[in-house]
Amino acid sequence: MALIVQKYGGTSVASPERIGHVADKVAGWRSKGNDVVVVVSAMSGETDRLLSLAGAITDSQSPRELDVLLATGEQVTIALLSMALEDRGCPARSYTGAQVHIRTDSAHNKARIRGIEDKHIHTDLAAGRVVVVAGFQGADDHGNITTLGRGGSDTTAVALAAALKADECQIYTDVAGVYTTDPRVVPEARLLDRITFEEMLEMASLGSRVLQIRSVSFAGRYNVPLRVLSSFEEGEGTLITYEDETMEQALISGIAFNRDEAKLTIVGVPDTPGVAHRLLGPIAKANIEVDMILQNVAPDGTTTDFTFTVNRNDYKKALTILEKTAKAMGAREVSGDDKIVKISLVGVGMRSHAGIASTMFEALANEGVNIRMISTSEIKVSVVVDEKYLELGVRTLHDTFKLAQPDSI
Amino acid sequence: MALIVQKYGGTSVASPERIGHVADKVAGWRSKGNDVVVVVSAMSGETDRLLSLAGAITDSQSPRELDVLLATGEQVTIALLSMALEDRGCPARSYTGAQVHIRTDSAHNKARIRGIEDKHIHTDLAAGRVVVVAGFQGADDHGNITTLGRGGSDTTAVALAAALKADECQIYTDVAGVYTTDPRVVPEARLLDRITFEEMLEMASLGSRVLQIRSVSFAGRYNVPLRVLSSFEEGEGTLITYEDETMEQALISGIAFNRDEAKLTIVGVPDTPGVAHRLLGPIAKANIEVDMILQNVAPDGTTTDFTFTVNRNDYKKALTILEKTAKAMGAREVSGDDKIVKISLVGVGMRSHAGIASTMFEALANEGVNIRMISTSEIKVSVVVDEKYLELGVRTLHDTFKLAQPDSI
Repeated sequence: MALIVQKYGGTSVASPERIGHVADKVAGWRSKGNDVVVVVSAMSGETDRLLSLAGAITDSQSPRELDVLLATGEQVTIALLSMALEDRGCPARSYTGAQVHIRTDSAHNKARIRGIEDKHIHTDLAAGRVVVVAGFQGADDHGNITTLGRGGSDTTAVALAAALKADECQIYTDVAGVYTTDPRVVPEARLLDRITFEEMLEMASLGSRVLQIRSVSFAGRYNVPLRVLSSFEEGEGTLITYEDETMEQALISGIAFNRDEAKLTIVGVPDTPGVAHRLLGPIAKANIEVDMILQNVAPDGTTTDFTFTVNRNDYKKALTILEKTAKAMGAREVSGDDKIVKISLVGVGMRSHAGIASTMFEALANEGVNIRMISTSEIKVSVVVDEKYLELGVRTLHDTFKLAQPDSI
Repeated sequence: MALIVQKYGGTSVASPERIGHVADKVAGWRSKGNDVVVVVSAMSGETDRLLSLAGAITDSQSPRELDVLLATGEQVTIALLSMALEDRGCPARSYTGAQVHIRTDSAHNKARIRGIEDKHIHTDLAAGRVVVVAGFQGADDHGNITTLGRGGSDTTAVALAAALKADECQIYTDVAGVYTTDPRVVPEARLLDRITFEEMLEMASLGSRVLQIRSVSFAGRYNVPLRVLSSFEEGEGTLITYEDETMEQALISGIAFNRDEAKLTIVGVPDTPGVAHRLLGPIAKANIEVDMILQNVAPDGTTTDFTFTVNRNDYKKALTILEKTAKAMGAREVSGDDKIVKISLVGVGMRSHAGIASTMFEALANEGVNIRMISTSEIKVSVVVDEKYLELGVRTLHDTFKLAQPDSI
């Protein structure tokens, strides 16, 4: 007997048949005596269909009207899922974001949730109904329809779980949960029973795209127990919680990696105060996100070298900007490389153990993997290596830290 | 400088290209200084697509959820049209039925409008914006999404025009307006400049399906000047108004006909009080609508004969029911014919002129068209004839009453 918020994404509701399958799952949870609130996305392909309609109208779409358009995607799913539930003898009622008063700011296409009025929902749950809510959308104070941006259905689920003080927020996806690393690279990768919010944030931001980063940080802030599990297979999935005693034992939770990296270097920049800002300012202004930043002062002490990484899609743009800046600042040389990747060890246990980084560097050196950049945080060590070393590097580290075995090290 | 409510149906907004064409028209009206409120239907084909999704989920769809589903159809159109208007430099804002507070009762799938809150709309119009409203939908007092039933967008437009005290409500369709009869049957059929609400009601209910009956009677009740015109061709269309002096001159406005008729006859029913009710009660109970009813008492005065017409789709069902009733009542015989049609002369001028019916019967007799049933009302004379005489009958009458000439008779 618990209050559970479940979220099913686009692939889980891609067809009437799959919606029926989701209805079976939901009705199963309900029949065990749980109160269930379900959040759904648009059927996969639907958002793209709507966007192409809008694209055929104009290239510069009114953000307000784009939200009115896209919000229909989830509205279709909530109606179909509620019908399917009622068809199974499971009373259900659907609500759009506006109907269930998911109040957001007025930032169309990327609105943020401000509050949820849970009156409707509690009334329905008390009456034995499953409540089906459209993810990804809400309404601002003037009643304008807003959307949270693509993938925002996770955030809706977590926000609902927080507002309702749910016992668990279950995110159903097409993977069985969070693995120690990508099973396509390391077949022995192990499904994690648990992971902390902090670790999950690092894993998610590094390309293990199981969950939206925003929803994870939201869940962490409001202390909503989050579970990631598969909508196609049975299984307990991975529970994302606050650090607890049992977790202290695991040094490393997983290995994340990111193939979309590119690095840029500027050499021989006259070392004057404010040089970093003058270099990176124009990059930031062009809406290019910078990830890692390294600075070395040259032996003579009068010039300095900079290296930073950007998303591979922004590489050419960033290079052009940097070359212009270099000329203006009298730098010696600009170079770059878009055939690099980032590999990261992630684990809260790392905090209290010093030797992790050196074990990591040694293991990579033994396999002849040349490290091009290093960056560390409290619960993460990242290295940048040539793209060709990605698989070798990840497998070596997975092996070195014995991640295939439960409760390793 | 007027306040105009315009309604564009499904075929007028069937594609992004056509929506662009509608935006051109609307922006044209706006640029002439008019305040414009636009009501749109779902893109044609969209409602059927949604219904087939629902059909793939279950045969017995929750009426509430069906409304949630179908309401997305118009929501897509309002967003696309508003984008197209803004793209043309014409400020616009879209509203769903619920957003613009089209309050209805809770009869899902066939709700009736109770009221409209026009605050939003007046604010937008005052700010120079075109207001784009989703037709066919509203919300009940609890905020549940309702729909007015198929084709209800006309009603939305008329209700908005009434609430806003609009100068004119323009219904854009795929025909140029209301003709004296179907131009496919009589090529010389003339486009009417004007027609009265009463005449339009008779024309609409008899198969000249230019407008929804409900919206016409609504417009009549609230005295909203209604204009039917083509969204594809230029032209003034047909204005539907209250009777005025100029209209008194026209005896006959048009000839309507209905191919979907079937008639049933029961002969030799013992003539006792309540016989009509006992005959037609079971038909009504089976949700079969009866149109014309004729009763003759037999010469001996002890038995009576009944003939009535139903929609051709209901013919077999009605026949089965009537045969059962006949047995129970001791009637002599039941017969029927589903190869009949109804032709009607319609005109408010008829009231003050006696000879119309006899001229009609004479004209038909001269052409050898055998009349099977006759029924009259204040502004209508209808005859039932064999299906094969439909075209001949309509052409003969169109000719006899000189309808191809303006201000005839």
